[in-house]
Amino acid sequence: MDQEKSVPIPGWSTEISEVGFHKIEIRGYALDEIIRNLSFSETIYLTIRGELPSRNQARVFDAVLCGIVDHGFFAPTGLAARIVASANPNNIIPGVAGGILTVGSVTVSPQDTAELILEAWKLKEKNGLSRQETAERIVDEALSQKKRIPGLGHPLHPTGDPRALALEEVAKKNGVWGEKSELYKEIHRIFVQKTGKTLPINIDGMMGCVLTELGFISKEMAGIAALSYMPGIIAHAVEETKEQARLRAVEGEYKGVPLRKLPREYLRG
Amino acid sequence: MDQEKSVPIPGWSTEISEVGFHKIEIRGYALDEIIRNLSFSETIYLTIRGELPSRNQARVFDAVLCGIVDHGFFAPTGLAARIVASANPNNIIPGVAGGILTVGSVTVSPQDTAELILEAWKLKEKNGLSRQETAERIVDEALSQKKRIPGLGHPLHPTGDPRALALEEVAKKNGVWGEKSELYKEIHRIFVQKTGKTLPINIDGMMGCVLTELGFISKEMAGIAALSYMPGIIAHAVEETKEQARLRAVEGEYKGVPLRKLPREYLRG
Amino acid sequence: MDQEKSVPIPGWSTEISEVGFHKIEIRGYALDEIIRNLSFSETIYLTIRGELPSRNQARVFDAVLCGIVDHGFFAPTGLAARIVASANPNNIIPGVAGGILTVGSVTVSPQDTAELILEAWKLKEKNGLSRQETAERIVDEALSQKKRIPGLGHPLHPTGDPRALALEEVAKKNGVWGEKSELYKEIHRIFVQKTGKTLPINIDGMMGCVLTELGFISKEMAGIAALSYMPGIIAHAVEETKEQARLRAVEGEYKGVPLRKLPREYLRG
Amino acid sequence: MDQEKSVPIPGWSTEISEVGFHKIEIRGYALDEIIRNLSFSETIYLTIRGELPSRNQARVFDAVLCGIVDHGFFAPTGLAARIVASANPNNIIPGVAGGILTVGSVTVSPQDTAELILEAWKLKEKNGLSRQETAERIVDEALSQKKRIPGLGHPLHPTGDPRALALEEVAKKNGVWGEKSELYKEIHRIFVQKTGKTLPINIDGMMGCVLTELGFISKEMAGIAALSYMPGIIAHAVEETKEQARLRAVEGEYKGVPLRKLPREYLRG
Repeated sequence: MDQEKSVPIPGWSTEISEVGFHKIEIRGYALDEIIRNLSFSETIYLTIRGELPSRNQARVFDAVLCGIVDHGFFAPTGLAARIVASANPNNIIPGVAGGILTVGSVTVSPQDTAELILEAWKLKEKNGLSRQETAERIVDEALSQKKRIPGLGHPLHPTGDPRALALEEVAKKNGVWGEKSELYKEIHRIFVQKTGKTLPINIDGMMGCVLTELGFISKEMAGIAALSYMPGIIAHAVEETKEQARLRAVEGEYKGVPLRKLPREYLRG
Repeated sequence: MDQEKSVPIPGWSTEISEVGFHKIEIRGYALDEIIRNLSFSETIYLTIRGELPSRNQARVFDAVLCGIVDHGFFAPTGLAARIVASANPNNIIPGVAGGILTVGSVTVSPQDTAELILEAWKLKEKNGLSRQETAERIVDEALSQKKRIPGLGHPLHPTGDPRALALEEVAKKNGVWGEKSELYKEIHRIFVQKTGKTLPINIDGMMGCVLTELGFISKEMAGIAALSYMPGIIAHAVEETKEQARLRAVEGEYKGVPLRKLPREYLRG
Repeated sequence: MDQEKSVPIPGWSTEISEVGFHKIEIRGYALDEIIRNLSFSETIYLTIRGELPSRNQARVFDAVLCGIVDHGFFAPTGLAARIVASANPNNIIPGVAGGILTVGSVTVSPQDTAELILEAWKLKEKNGLSRQETAERIVDEALSQKKRIPGLGHPLHPTGDPRALALEEVAKKNGVWGEKSELYKEIHRIFVQKTGKTLPINIDGMMGCVLTELGFISKEMAGIAALSYMPGIIAHAVEETKEQARLRAVEGEYKGVPLRKLPREYLRG
Repeated sequence: MDQEKSVPIPGWSTEISEVGFHKIEIRGYALDEIIRNLSFSETIYLTIRGELPSRNQARVFDAVLCGIVDHGFFAPTGLAARIVASANPNNIIPGVAGGILTVGSVTVSPQDTAELILEAWKLKEKNGLSRQETAERIVDEALSQKKRIPGLGHPLHPTGDPRALALEEVAKKNGVWGEKSELYKEIHRIFVQKTGKTLPINIDGMMGCVLTELGFISKEMAGIAALSYMPGIIAHAVEETKEQARLRAVEGEYKGVPLRKLPREYLRG
């Protein structure tokens, strides 16, 4: 076979961990030392980012991770976990994977806000705009293109998402707050002013701010959102398999064509 | 339609969270209060178990969660995450789900040890055996049935798994250690004595002990193992999509039948 | 690094396909020749089994594959596909994977029947029993151990599963029917006789029979069941993303502890 | 609870199947009649599209479905299936889901070509352009924006993808070929002319053409691509669990920071 010439096989390399004979190190630190000394949120931060958080960063990161641990039956995530778990009563892992697959596209998506902040920031820096000018441009463009501003509004919390308010408070108290978060808040203010819609910043939006301040990149945020939801996903999958041996079904309506016969030419002898 | 009569549709209920208008509570606690005050590991414990951990339990639970954050290329988990991520460079969630799907069957499975401990514990209680007698019965039965004792041995750590040793130390220091863990350690001691194989207790085995002491059930342990591996899964998926736009492939050997022609009767005009 | 010495890395080999420079062969046949000449069901059979089906086997395999293409809202499969798809409106693949994850454990599981047939067959051969004697032993054992006989009963089809009847008819007409299927039918007959429960053989049970006659092994059957459901999974995922931009939610009841305050010792300054 | 007022729960409806007491119909046809009479590819077409294919459409659809049944170790799909399967030796479904998750983004993606065809077709119709003028505009725009033309080139088949050639032949012979396919071929011709790169149309590109001619929409194509790969995914997952009880690992290189100690302030007593 000469395919190797035509299709070079990419090799494997990593900066995350070194694993070998008598050796498991995460980002350079021996894993047993990590177990003895660090909290889980510090270890998550280290593993994903490559460096340890400061005490203040660790405190704020804990608050971020607690942000979306569950949303009951008002979200596809727990539902997907339960439905898949109902078909796998002896193994919750497929249900956990089912829950994870709902994360990070139109829901549980701090990265959308983070990308808007990044775009707005570039616009501001490139054109030497004030915060307010930048926000006005961003909002005008979104309104003219009928694009959604990510991170705003929540049907259950029309006057303020308590999770977002708590996270903002912890972030500010610990000094993990800056120009970029203020820029997003200005975008929110201008949006409300221009549209008259008093949508609050929701938890996805606030996570996008705070994770930006902590230095995470967009793809990492999707992963962190999934990680944050894991306690709820696991709890739902376990609860489903505990309470019942029933497969999930729902009542639905059939709106398709009525009963008909296969045409003669499709019939076999 | 009268199917509702014949197939009762199960309703949905939960003890995990109450979510509604102006309300998101996890196990009875307002989520914003959780964000302001708890660590992520305390919140995980609360969400899955229903009650808050004590300070000592929280410390030990942190150590458990740090136990298996990554295992580099010496495990299917990170590999699966990377390979799926290589095909989804703009969205890491499929890769995260791919990584999760490798967890909890033959690897990353503290629940196997926990089930052995439970079985041994029942045997001991029912028959009024000493710890040593119980361990001898368990080991004899496993050896005669050629069954594996779960939680023993690691190819990279033949003389002691440093993660297991660190976790045991933290658990003992914080008083989360008891009769059940000692019973498992006795099973290990008897196994080494009877077989002459000096396999150490590995991290899965030690997690099984400590999670049993913390009161978790077997299915919850599989979820916690998945959660513990999430930092590595996320880091690998992100690293894969950062470093390359190449689809993964490997060199392999074809061992099947050589080239042949379809038989005449399968050929179309 | 000396880990290679301690942990041999398994190599990759396959008998399924040979892929290289100017070469894509499936089980020895050039894929372009397959595209020009075979049906999809013949190609599925070839790829999984390694050899081509006869015309009669191909006809019966087609009938098997049509057996469980969809089950509307009365199964977790389509539901899981829709719920995951509701969160991924631009990409149906996560929804498809969500649907697949519900397959093959307590539902859509012809392999359970196949394993029972295999067990009964061994019992019969080993002990020189008649078909009836074998069936009686199997049923007696199941009843005494309160074990379910797989493949029997369906809440929507109490007097006969029309899919199972159609599949049996096609199998018999094409000569893909034999001693093992008759043994399963005898187990069914004895079960009804002993219990008085007139449960019919359902489609999972009949697929287990027919796939056994076709020579498939248990693990392949789980895959074929998943493949058979794929049309419905895809159709549901697509329909969900077409009809709506709404995230799925359901009405549920909270049965947990009422609102409470975090104990003082958990509060941060 | 008054959340129902604020968050309307969407109901469930479908045009795919009607399932109820004594009733399983797919797109209006009784499923037992389908089992008795249709091929699997006809049933797939019916379930996804809502209507039966003509004989010629069915023949071409069979050829499409055979297009990408496997690609050995030169694709993430089989690899992901095997790696996940290595961790789940008793259940191939997680491995099947792992394989599915690699489909339809940068690989196995006929929908990208279909979207280009649709865009080119609209450009042509709106501006009354000739086929050649349209193709030139599309190629010029792609080249100026450094965008890839989807469906062109294959590292293993630099002079022609045999699968694409076979599929084109079957489509033309059965009259499933028209203006849109010719437009794509013209785009290919102009691309080669302008760039001097003699890339052939690959199987994804040709599937995109032929599925467009058959009337499928883009999202359905991603599902069909996944369905087409299912035989290979299943075969790899089964082969992996048969041949070995070894967890997958690969040799890789660690390129991160060398061993270091946790800073003092992170150490616990």
